Amino acid sequence: MSQTITISLDAMGGDAGPDVVIGGAAIALDRRPDLRFVIFGEEAAVRPVLDASPRVRDASAFHHCDVTVQMDDKPSQALRKGRWKSSMWRCVQAVRDGEAGAALSAGNTGALMAMSKFCLKPLPGIERPAIAAIWPTLKGESIVLDVGATIGADARMLVDFAVMGAAMARSIFDLERPTVGLLNIGVEEIKGVEEVREAARILREMDHPGFDYRGFVEGDDLGKGTVDVVVTEGFAGNIALKTAEGTARQLAEYLRAAMSRTWTARLGYFFARSAFQLLKEKMDPRRANGGVFLGLNGMVIKSHGGSDAEGFASAIDLACDMAKNDLVRMIATDRGLGSRDIPAALHRVKAAVS
Amino acid sequence: MSQTITISLDAMGGDAGPDVVIGGAAIALDRRPDLRFVIFGEEAAVRPVLDASPRVRDASAFHHCDVTVQMDDKPSQALRKGRWKSSMWRCVQAVRDGEAGAALSAGNTGALMAMSKFCLKPLPGIERPAIAAIWPTLKGESIVLDVGATIGADARMLVDFAVMGAAMARSIFDLERPTVGLLNIGVEEIKGVEEVREAARILREMDHPGFDYRGFVEGDDLGKGTVDVVVTEGFAGNIALKTAEGTARQLAEYLRAAMSRTWTARLGYFFARSAFQLLKEKMDPRRANGGVFLGLNGMVIKSHGGSDAEGFASAIDLACDMAKNDLVRMIATDRGLGSRDIPAALHRVKAAVS
Repeated sequence: MSQTITISLDAMGGDAGPDVVIGGAAIALDRRPDLRFVIFGEEAAVRPVLDASPRVRDASAFHHCDVTVQMDDKPSQALRKGRWKSSMWRCVQAVRDGEAGAALSAGNTGALMAMSKFCLKPLPGIERPAIAAIWPTLKGESIVLDVGATIGADARMLVDFAVMGAAMARSIFDLERPTVGLLNIGVEEIKGVEEVREAARILREMDHPGFDYRGFVEGDDLGKGTVDVVVTEGFAGNIALKTAEGTARQLAEYLRAAMSRTWTARLGYFFARSAFQLLKEKMDPRRANGGVFLGLNGMVIKSHGGSDAEGFASAIDLACDMAKNDLVRMIATDRGLGSRDIPAALHRVKAAVS
Repeated sequence: MSQTITISLDAMGGDAGPDVVIGGAAIALDRRPDLRFVIFGEEAAVRPVLDASPRVRDASAFHHCDVTVQMDDKPSQALRKGRWKSSMWRCVQAVRDGEAGAALSAGNTGALMAMSKFCLKPLPGIERPAIAAIWPTLKGESIVLDVGATIGADARMLVDFAVMGAAMARSIFDLERPTVGLLNIGVEEIKGVEEVREAARILREMDHPGFDYRGFVEGDDLGKGTVDVVVTEGFAGNIALKTAEGTARQLAEYLRAAMSRTWTARLGYFFARSAFQLLKEKMDPRRANGGVFLGLNGMVIKSHGGSDAEGFASAIDLACDMAKNDLVRMIATDRGLGSRDIPAALHRVKAAVS
């Protein structure tokens, strides 16, 4: 069964702009030939790149946009300055108008989130959106959210994040009832901040049919893959994400230095180069590129601003998975089962399944 | 110039108890033969280990204690149950009574912090203590604080952490004016939580003579060593620390798996084994063992509970450095220059140096 999926692309986002966006689209198209794109950007910058890549051009509708949101624009500026003309806004709007199943931009995160909220609006009952990241672990992959959208989330928001993250895990990991943990600083129930403790209490009592709440996890559980979904407030989540990226780069640098220090080490490197290649691929941050905006009436994916075409193609893959499985509807349904008004809903569900 | 330093040791703390503590003391004594110890613990458990290590025995005064604080005791419990009889309490008390220059325990962190606050009392003007960790970076080492003592620090506390962390950096890194950064989630001034923004404003205006405030840093700056001292609230700091530890273990595991996959990889490993040994040492968490409690009238160091003798010896080394340089007095002096009442003090300092 094949299904044509259309992704809207902001060709002007990211450090490298159209080259990376169109290059990434070409790679993604090799993997899914039935993929279609709606591309937004400045004609003079995008058209030549598109003409040099006829396969992408033929699979795309291109729309010229006068305005480009800058990487250092404040979110409020981005919303003010003729926002409806920018490639970023129109990329998101294509999702709202049903022209695309998901929007993808490598531009300014704050502006993209502000536009997405304004244009798509939050799902009913969801107070604040979250950005979910896919985290490589020793067991495979986990979902970590929020990694920077909602600073100082309260207990209710953390519970919403659990519901949304679990729906995403079911969607992309093909799990029936993913495990969920709350990021905290110690496994004893007494530790940590009040919001986290309160969220834990709600999640335990809720006993949501869509996921299995497993209690608190700590920073070192992220890499272990202790649970499928790790829920945290956006400040701590963003710091955890960047700390892990930084540590990975630091260790790669140590390794590089160690392997070039002596001729025996260099010889060893030569023999083991296929192993190092494998390791490099495993540690490649491009494989897990893409922050997923959850909690809105439409799918928006943020690609890393410094990503290359390979990384951008990974983000397109992710956008496809999200669009294909209709994650938005999945969350809206689950949200009905996971909130203040849950007892009644849950009783209905439990009555229905028993 | 030699100086006899006495460290008080809680022989009952940590997963392995006296074996690791006395073993660590023996290693530390090899490095600093003029070191002296006051050791607290249960006679029946400690005495045999001490007798098997005559050099440590001869350099130590041993005191029997009936009570041992358990790893899962809540801090409040530890303070209630005959606290003055426990090895942990008496270890801290030895610092208060001037019998030791610093106290070291591998026991329950919450209990050790509660006892240290109760026994030693905060320094004048310091509202909340912090735990400082030494963080290996691409440039060498940085100090990161707080890593778990003060959840939800406000702007004033963050400023105190900056003052204390900078004093520690001057003490152990031998820097005249260490650089200080505030951990945040984006370098633009507009981002992040209110407390962090307010702390940034105070630090900028303060222009403290003891350190050079460099603005916001992000999670990936930790491994880069962008600044000498990274200041953060305890929840995010603890998550960053454990995430980095977890990521390091994860990558070591990837590396181990990659190097044993094929015979050429194993051959490569054989040739490069000295490089791998070097890398292993570089990544060895035991090298940076020891959380330093800052802001109290006396030095207390927390060793990792799962540390071995080598790691415990590193923590003893750290305790020696702290005791030798009289970090407590250094912080008390700097604190007078780094707070609400700073303008007057600063004018005096500036007048004195100009």
